[in-house]
Amino acid sequence: MHKARVYVTLKPSILDPQGNAVKNGLESLGFADVTDVRVGKYLEVSLDVVDKNVALEQVEEMCKKLLANPVIEDYRFELVEG
Amino acid sequence: MHKARVYVTLKPSILDPQGNAVKNGLESLGFADVTDVRVGKYLEVSLDVVDKNVALEQVEEMCKKLLANPVIEDYRFELVEG
Repeated sequence: MHKARVYVTLKPSILDPQGNAVKNGLESLGFADVTDVRVGKYLEVSLDVVDKNVALEQVEEMCKKLLANPVIEDYRFELVEG
Repeated sequence: MHKARVYVTLKPSILDPQGNAVKNGLESLGFADVTDVRVGKYLEVSLDVVDKNVALEQVEEMCKKLLANPVIEDYRFELVEG
């Protein structure tokens, strides 16, 4: 059993209206020191795979095919046991 | 300048229909070994604050007030320089 922690973020060149909305919200609440907010996705994928290399390959493929949109998003992930 | 990496996840007892949808999508693509998917949020908050302890306090407060819903979500964050 492995668990993959996948982080999907917008590429730096892509505008992030959701991040801007959060930034404005924080400013309205009095957090004046916030200079930027970027919003991404965080996924935990549990895999019934024993071999770590197989798990790595599968998660890489999942990211490319479904979890991230490679045109506008970057992804990275880490694998933990159990 | 500090940057906070904030991870917001649903509490384990809360149903995650978005995670189930992703799991079904992965299965449709042939990933038969996926046992569970949980979807959360990942935020990068840039702060114009020099003192690390002040930054930690501010981000903690942001999480409680806006970034996470403490009734159904857990959050954790880490602070990096620059």
